[in-house]
Amino acid sequence: MVKKYKRNQRIGALMKIFAEKPNYVFSYNYFSEIFNAAKSTISEDISIVKKLVEELDFGKIETIAGASGGVIYIPVLGEKEKNSILSDLCNLFAQKNRIIAGGFIYLTDLFNNPSVVSNIAKIISSEFSQEDIDHIVTVETKGIPVAVMTAKYLNVPVAVIRRNNKVTEGATVSINYVSGSSNNIQTMSLSRRSLNENAKVLIVDDFMKGGGTAKGMADMMREFNVQVVGTAVVIETKKPDKKLVDNYLSLLVLNNINEKDGTIEIEPNWNLLK
Amino acid sequence: MVKKYKRNQRIGALMKIFAEKPNYVFSYNYFSEIFNAAKSTISEDISIVKKLVEELDFGKIETIAGASGGVIYIPVLGEKEKNSILSDLCNLFAQKNRIIAGGFIYLTDLFNNPSVVSNIAKIISSEFSQEDIDHIVTVETKGIPVAVMTAKYLNVPVAVIRRNNKVTEGATVSINYVSGSSNNIQTMSLSRRSLNENAKVLIVDDFMKGGGTAKGMADMMREFNVQVVGTAVVIETKKPDKKLVDNYLSLLVLNNINEKDGTIEIEPNWNLLK
Repeated sequence: MVKKYKRNQRIGALMKIFAEKPNYVFSYNYFSEIFNAAKSTISEDISIVKKLVEELDFGKIETIAGASGGVIYIPVLGEKEKNSILSDLCNLFAQKNRIIAGGFIYLTDLFNNPSVVSNIAKIISSEFSQEDIDHIVTVETKGIPVAVMTAKYLNVPVAVIRRNNKVTEGATVSINYVSGSSNNIQTMSLSRRSLNENAKVLIVDDFMKGGGTAKGMADMMREFNVQVVGTAVVIETKKPDKKLVDNYLSLLVLNNINEKDGTIEIEPNWNLLK
Repeated sequence: MVKKYKRNQRIGALMKIFAEKPNYVFSYNYFSEIFNAAKSTISEDISIVKKLVEELDFGKIETIAGASGGVIYIPVLGEKEKNSILSDLCNLFAQKNRIIAGGFIYLTDLFNNPSVVSNIAKIISSEFSQEDIDHIVTVETKGIPVAVMTAKYLNVPVAVIRRNNKVTEGATVSINYVSGSSNNIQTMSLSRRSLNENAKVLIVDDFMKGGGTAKGMADMMREFNVQVVGTAVVIETKKPDKKLVDNYLSLLVLNNINEKDGTIEIEPNWNLLK
């Protein structure tokens, strides 16, 4: 016997399916089949879900007409949640015991914590939810989790630029670039297969000081003939205030590390909260 | 005026919240507050969600009694979905154009595709859903997305072992190990801060041939006095059939790469489908 589900159950299941695959177009047929229900019933369910998503500030549900049409859930953060995430992030990033030898900050635990990374990715993907993006590009290693989680929300693949040439990458394009802060010449390589010409890419990285790495990535993108739609970094340093790239979005700004009394001064990027 | 929500809406919102944070304990108070509803109402809602999750084979909802209690969603894959994911993965991994110079397979696009990686992570987390796990451990670079997504489902942090010592990692522990397949001596380093003593860890990696890297990771774990609960790899090669580690879970088995006619023979790990 084929199961039938109540409206309650269908609404719950719909929200689970949407939440697990944001920015993905589901066909009405797909839902008809899994719920064993008429399309008209599914249409009514979707209307309820649409209203729910709006009222609870979860973003929006859009219906796309036509043969390749369907329903898509686009998460967009409300002001309240954005505020609360940014303030939580500031507190976490500024924890006292993070200062390590050489005046660096230990942030690896945060960049590898899926719930912190999900919150970061929610903000980045929400800020770029209006843009047409085909690919996220990042450079190994610390930015990879943020890039992957942002890609999950935007439903696009990631291309990871490597520091070395790897035999498992096939033919690669390599460039040399000057790290803005240390003045060292470094190399980055990216598999030729990883991006299609004319793709629209969003560059994502964990940290920006001089902007040399971000500029290197932008240069690499020119070699691939793709279009950079934007650059997002989790945290930038206040100084130098002239970076090697112009347009980028940062979530947090590191104002100062005081090694003597062990304090770290971090604030949100206030432009995000305007 | 404070908003009130209908049961439909609460059920939908609950499923969204659970799906976005699996294996996380939510308190009844939390739901009472966001829905502005009595605890008895929330209890009824949770009963409906519980039944829904069971009937649709989404895993299970458990209620935990006591002061630190609440409600938790544990995704466990049904046989049908597990089967369909593994068969999709076999098809993707065995695509003809993946063979590159030297008889290697290009898999980077798959390991960086969030929807492929989510499916892989669903299986790994589902297989280990009964275990008590505090941390996922992986080694850079290709396995990171799978490790992060698995960690997201299990609601635990990741520790990423680096190939080189980085100044931003603070004090590290380094070991040398012999790569099982190439007989090269390599180094791995892990920040001392990344794991607590006696933690229970799950090792996750993308590929296993000889098992040298997995053995290196297990050796590293001994230096940290943690307990390895399991080891999971996405794909293992059939040969050598004697690996350097004994107990591990693989999702796929690579039987053969035929460079001449460009075919790749991959099958699921049939033990997963028993």
